[in-house]
Amino acid sequence: MRHVVAVDVGGTETKAALVAGTRDGVSAVRQLRRGTPRLPDGTATAEAVVDLVVELVGLLGEDSPLPVDGIGVVVPGVVDEAVGVGVFSANLGWRDYPFGEVLTRRLGLPVAFGHDVRAGGLAEHRIGAARGLTDAVIMPIGTGIAAALVLGGQLQSGGGYSGEIGHVDVGHGDPCGCGQHGCVEVRASSAAIARRYTARSGRAVRGAVEVAERVRAGEADAVAVWQEAVEALAKGILLVATLLGPEAVVLGGGLAMAGSLLTDPLRDRLDGLIIFQRRPELRLAALGDEAGCLGAALLAIDTLEGP
Amino acid sequence: MRHVVAVDVGGTETKAALVAGTRDGVSAVRQLRRGTPRLPDGTATAEAVVDLVVELVGLLGEDSPLPVDGIGVVVPGVVDEAVGVGVFSANLGWRDYPFGEVLTRRLGLPVAFGHDVRAGGLAEHRIGAARGLTDAVIMPIGTGIAAALVLGGQLQSGGGYSGEIGHVDVGHGDPCGCGQHGCVEVRASSAAIARRYTARSGRAVRGAVEVAERVRAGEADAVAVWQEAVEALAKGILLVATLLGPEAVVLGGGLAMAGSLLTDPLRDRLDGLIIFQRRPELRLAALGDEAGCLGAALLAIDTLEGP
Repeated sequence: MRHVVAVDVGGTETKAALVAGTRDGVSAVRQLRRGTPRLPDGTATAEAVVDLVVELVGLLGEDSPLPVDGIGVVVPGVVDEAVGVGVFSANLGWRDYPFGEVLTRRLGLPVAFGHDVRAGGLAEHRIGAARGLTDAVIMPIGTGIAAALVLGGQLQSGGGYSGEIGHVDVGHGDPCGCGQHGCVEVRASSAAIARRYTARSGRAVRGAVEVAERVRAGEADAVAVWQEAVEALAKGILLVATLLGPEAVVLGGGLAMAGSLLTDPLRDRLDGLIIFQRRPELRLAALGDEAGCLGAALLAIDTLEGP
Repeated sequence: MRHVVAVDVGGTETKAALVAGTRDGVSAVRQLRRGTPRLPDGTATAEAVVDLVVELVGLLGEDSPLPVDGIGVVVPGVVDEAVGVGVFSANLGWRDYPFGEVLTRRLGLPVAFGHDVRAGGLAEHRIGAARGLTDAVIMPIGTGIAAALVLGGQLQSGGGYSGEIGHVDVGHGDPCGCGQHGCVEVRASSAAIARRYTARSGRAVRGAVEVAERVRAGEADAVAVWQEAVEALAKGILLVATLLGPEAVVLGGGLAMAGSLLTDPLRDRLDGLIIFQRRPELRLAALGDEAGCLGAALLAIDTLEGP
């Protein structure tokens, strides 16, 4: 049994937990949440994130019944786990910041540094909805959309670049902030669903959750936006099925809270699109918004246990 | 050093070789080529293919300086290597034929059964143009287009379904024989390039090689068809870069014989499309049309050597 502190640095919120467990099972003993610092300069933001991690590790370490053995930290964007570098974050602005090295120096403990989505995928594969699968794609849908690829039983990283399913072109033609057109996340992220509903109806909403409520109530504008999101997701999943042939696609993130309102039409549309491809089973994520933090804890335990 | 017979069953031609080597290097001692049998019934075709393999193993075995240790056989279509089954071949018509079991019974030797494109990718990764890479996509372009995915240093199979890059939708809208629209191979396979050139110009050609010659000569119809092929390939490779982040894409098959006539414009177009993705290096395959056969030999040697 190991005791580790895990930190999941999000675009807006940072989650931290004191976690006890082994490679095969972890549970959070205590949790903390804080706003993620954002400064005008990316390097300054990265440094403020490091300060926050050090503070959170200190607070959670004080509560630990046993000494903390190690730390797991995951961040968004392009992450090169092999060298511990945050290569690029569009939201938080840093480029090539050596998180692994800096955190190890500041904390004086073994640090595992990784990518938020891949860490969440690791957790879903090891202890969640993708458990036991050889080939699975774990796809959290939130402000953006990305995926963790488990292929041949191993989490793949593509040097930090893999899994950008939010930015494949599914042909709808709308421009994306990334500079391309037709990206899945322009129509299907939680943020996009809320934004597109308001643009279409003139009515403000708190987020995609409220659009989902209006879909359930049969409101035409909400239904139209929802159907376009399902269409984009189905085409993105079709690409994944064609290229990778996974046994299952696990839907996570905030949008997965919609449950069957999301999976039922998505299954129907996918049935209409799939021809020769392996039909991936659609599953809902098991670990909710804790997946990234539990994955960071698993990364820390893996580092401590060695190969 | 092992002696194995390797057979690569193609849609039109079957290549066989007596191969000497180890896991890290193989060379063909003697080779034979035969037309692949095609009967009206898929199961009958599979049985005729088995008869041909048995005959070729006998002929090449007679010439072997030492006893043949094992056999490697690869076939096209959807192949489940884990259970030795040819799940489906559009060209050759079989469904769920147990090649592994039947060949083992008929030959009385250890048999490794696999997929032609993945075996070719294995060979390019182990001894060819993708050697030493962790993440690479090996993409033979011939009558059709498919890809072998090496991710995390391992060849991935997706239960036999992975790598169908010829059938991702890149938005050109033309119908494909597979039942979908916009597929890469409708514009970029060797067969498609020849067919589309003839449809556009009214002039018959022997194949894509002749279209390439006409591109070099500056003939407008050939240039237009070639550019559309490059566009479809570039968009397919962009999808691969976005989802998988490979270090390199290795172009093989007949079309790769065009060399820089293919790679130069493809690199230019890819430079125009890539934004945040890892820019994959474009390489030409090293093993030509022997890749599948050498890969089958490597599969046989791997089976003999054990894990």
